[in-house]
Formats: sequence, structure tokens, C-alpha cells
Amino acid sequence: MVKNIHKDHRHYGWDNSLRPALTVAPGDAVTFDVPDASGGQFTPESRAEDIAALDFSNVNPVTGPVRVDGAEPGDALKITLLEFELIDWGWTAIIPGFGLLADDFPDPAMHIWRFAPQTGALAEYGPGGRVPIRPFPGTIGLAPAAKGVQEVIIPRRVGGNMDTRDLTAGTVLYLPVEVPGALLSIGDGHAAQGDGEVCGTAIESPFKLTVKVELEKGGAPPFPRFTTPGPVTRHIDGAGYEATTGVGPDLMASARAAVAAMIDLVSGRYGMSAPEAYMLCSVCADLRITEIVDAPNWIVACHFPLSVFAG
Amino acid sequence: MVKNIHKDHRHYGWDNSLRPALTVAPGDAVTFDVPDASGGQFTPESRAEDIAALDFSNVNPVTGPVRVDGAEPGDALKITLLEFELIDWGWTAIIPGFGLLADDFPDPAMHIWRFAPQTGALAEYGPGGRVPIRPFPGTIGLAPAAKGVQEVIIPRRVGGNMDTRDLTAGTVLYLPVEVPGALLSIGDGHAAQGDGEVCGTAIESPFKLTVKVELEKGGAPPFPRFTTPGPVTRHIDGAGYEATTGVGPDLMASARAAVAAMIDLVSGRYGMSAPEAYMLCSVCADLRITEIVDAPNWIVACHFPLSVFAG
Repeated sequence: MVKNIHKDHRHYGWDNSLRPALTVAPGDAVTFDVPDASGGQFTPESRAEDIAALDFSNVNPVTGPVRVDGAEPGDALKITLLEFELIDWGWTAIIPGFGLLADDFPDPAMHIWRFAPQTGALAEYGPGGRVPIRPFPGTIGLAPAAKGVQEVIIPRRVGGNMDTRDLTAGTVLYLPVEVPGALLSIGDGHAAQGDGEVCGTAIESPFKLTVKVELEKGGAPPFPRFTTPGPVTRHIDGAGYEATTGVGPDLMASARAAVAAMIDLVSGRYGMSAPEAYMLCSVCADLRITEIVDAPNWIVACHFPLSVFAG
Repeated sequence: MVKNIHKDHRHYGWDNSLRPALTVAPGDAVTFDVPDASGGQFTPESRAEDIAALDFSNVNPVTGPVRVDGAEPGDALKITLLEFELIDWGWTAIIPGFGLLADDFPDPAMHIWRFAPQTGALAEYGPGGRVPIRPFPGTIGLAPAAKGVQEVIIPRRVGGNMDTRDLTAGTVLYLPVEVPGALLSIGDGHAAQGDGEVCGTAIESPFKLTVKVELEKGGAPPFPRFTTPGPVTRHIDGAGYEATTGVGPDLMASARAAVAAMIDLVSGRYGMSAPEAYMLCSVCADLRITEIVDAPNWIVACHFPLSVFAG
């Protein structure tokens, strides 16, 4: 039997003293009503002008917590991502002060995506751009051992706002349990994202997500780890990539250089503004560390999939 | 007509005052005799004990320089990687003091790989492991504007020791020209590598490489960029991945944590020593930045392809 946890069971921030909204046994499946990062503040009619009115105290709500019987500190909670039930739209925004290139992009921007609500559908972007839908929860985590309310935007050892796009259907995620009952919560629905989430937002979209929870007694990993059931980029890699790089002694600076160069390339070639290219990179381009041993200079590459604009 | 540049035209370090070994016109193809990083010091009979005798003054020789008629500072040299002619063996080593986890792996180690000399062949690793061959030059670059001999191990704006595994057959690489004639050199043959080259060496193997050189006048990119003709991980992604992560405010520390966790996982599951797992990760596991915007904690993931041990 699949249990349900509904959108009225939301919390803002992690807190291990929260009363569980639901208790399950290892092996149970649970369907989460996963909100979007705005908690419903944005709609298909939202525009850049609405970003200034965003209430940050209500940002990134998560649904939960779900208590897992028998979970103890030192265990791993094994979470199998089973099924997503999507809606037909999402938003991507540049939020001033947030994102890898916040200094270069001080102005708000908003893009509303429309797509067919099946996994594998394509979301259109301006003339000619198409991004495959591949949903995952941006935020999936357990209550940390630290007492009191812990900021929800920051990912931690126990997971949380990982914004890691491989956590999609079929992936098995292992999180270290730090408190009795584990206290699992999920939020921040993403319909598609590239590695890095460079502008700070993905295709933000609420969905229903069914997961199975199991325990591995004593199996806590040092940080989150996961197993994917298959390729992680095959939905988008068919036409190859444009890749830009940053070369230097600071990985963060190299990442910024690579993304800035890709924004120039994409905006110039496909006739869009720099903010539009930045948002597009956030939902489909990948940051890879291609070299991290030739001291003192490391290389970060930004891979933009050419399938987005391929016939 | 394809011109050839042979192994007697080697240099150690970049130096824009070197006399060109060959001059070509834009549009010409050149076949390079690409040495391995040891410059022939290691053989199929080499063992860990031989690493102490490695002469570092002869490490990472490059073949060249090739002068390109008409190339001027501010141009891009467009290099199309056409064809590789491989031999049937390579080496991977842990060289003390070198590599992402140098502090954790102080002892030398050596693995000799055997493989069929066709692209796409598999190199075997202990019982059950198979890594697909996918060759690329670890070092491909132009003479920098800086005067005098410049260290060869360090990658730069003009390329050089980029150790970027996507620079394989069909990829088009754009490097910024900093001196008249561009002065292209190539070395450090790699038969396979993962993103990051975490232990500091790949499957090191000399080969012949044919490239076509062209000029884009005034088109110098800020850093190297490249276009791949197709997917970059499809040779290895069929069975999915194990992924470990590091979560924290320092990308380098997160990369180290992710790789350390993967070494534990691979060595435990597949019955090999930690140094063996470290070398295997270097030749086939990928470092990705999965999240770089949720301040102050970023996430680096190490993706190990399960196809290496799949039936």
C-alpha cells in the first residue's frame, strides 16, 4: 500500500524536533506532494516583475517529515525514486543575488515553460530550443542532528537541497541517518536541470513523487551517494556538445569562466539575450571537472548539449 | 597530403622561441608521433619499483612545434582530431606527491594494461574489470606569449596539458593563438581517462594522431573550447553509475571526499586494494559539479560507470 503525504504537511527549514506527519515501516512506499521552490507563489502568468515580491520566508518548502520505524543514527536510509506525476508548466528565473554569475546578472528574469506532462516530453524555449523533461526533487533529505531550525537552501551531509539532477526515476539514494526515525522530507520539484544549476533555478515545477524507503542498518555513507539505473545524459547527448572551459587555480573561478563563455556562445549563435542563455544553461548544460591534478591549474568545462537546437 | 612530425622533434616545456619543426598552411593535416608521459621511460615490464627512477626532467615531452602560416595573436587555431593509431599497451601509476589524494596515497603503484589496438577495444583490469579504450592527447597546446621556457605539466589559456578526455576522434578544439605561427605541439598520449584524472595518470600510451589545422581569424576564445561530434559518455554509461558526493564550501575538498568515498566503495565491492581502485577511478570515473549555487555548500559527485564490471 502506498501512503500519501499531502501539501498541507509542509515545513520551512530542517528541524529534528518537528512532529512527524507520517510514520512508515522500512519497505513502504510513500507518495509526496512535492511543491515548487516558490511554494506556489509563481504561476503560469508570472513575469520578471513579480520576482521582487517573492516572499523568501516561504521559499523552498518541503513536504514531511516522514518518520521511518527503526531508523537510528549511523544507518543509511535507502530511498528508491519510483514514479513522478507531473503538471504541464514550470518556471525558471534569475533571482538577483543568487546564482553562479550573480554579479554579472543583477536584474530579475523569468521564463515560463510549457510541456506535455509525461516524462520524456520536450519543453520549448524560444524559437527552436527544446529541453527534454527529466524530473527530480531538488530537495530530498533527512533531519540533521543539529538542534533548532536549519536553513533549507543549504545542502548538507544528510542531503537536503542537493539540486542533483541524477536523482530521477529509478535512482536509489543513500542518505546518512542522524536522528531516530530519519525524518525524510522532499521539496523543490525540478522538471529538468543541468549539472550545476548555474543560474540558481531549474525548470521549477511541483509534482507528485512516489518513493520506497528502506534501511541499511549501520550503513551510513560519509555523504549522500546514489546508484543510477542507466545512463545519466543519454536523454540529451545525441547531437554532441559545445564545451567551454575555465583554466586556473580556483575551481569556482574556472566554473564561472566556463559558464560565462558558454553564455556568450549560446546567446550569439542562437539569437537570444545573455539572461535567456544563462537560464537555458541552468536547465540543460553540465559542469564537469575535466582535470584536477595538474597543479596549480584545474579545468572546469561547461557542456551544452547541441540536441537542444538540433533539427 | 598529410605531413608527418616524428618523435625526434620533441621538446620539454613550452617556449615560443623554439624553431618550428614543421610549417603548414591552414587546411593541412599533420600526423604527430605522440609520446607517452614518461617519454618511453616505462615499458610493458615496468613495475611500481621503477617509479622512483623516473627522470622528471624528461617527463611529458611534446612533439612539435608546428608553425601555421598566417596565424597571429587573437586568432583561434581550429584543430580537428581526425585519427588515432594505437599500440597495444599502456600504464597507469600512482606517482608519490602527485594526484588528487596524494596525501592518502604516498606509495608508488603501477598497472600495465593490455588491449587490442583498435579504438573501442576494452582494456582488462584484474578479474572482471573492463575499461573501453577512447584515446585522446592529454597535452595539446600552443606556445604561450610568456617568454622563456614554461612548465609543461600546467595547462593554460593556450591549452597544453589539459587532460580533458573529450578531445577524442571527431572533436574540434579551438585554442587562442598568442604568438605568430601559433606553434602547436602535442604529447601525453592517453588511451582512456575519466573526467578529472584523479590519480594523476590515465591509461598512458603513445600513439600516432592525425589532426587538421585551420584558422579562425580574430576568433580567439577566452579559454580553450571544443565541439564534440556526439555523446561523450555513451561508450561507458550503459549500465548506469555508482555516484558518491562531497558536500561543502570548498569544491576541491568536496572532490576529494567524493573520490575517497568511491575508492572505498569500489575496493570493498570488487575486492581490490585502495590504490588499485584509485587508479581505476582515474581512468574511468567522472567528476561532475552537480550543484554550485546553494551557498555556502557546493556538491561534487564522482560517477563510476557500472559497465566496467557488468556481465
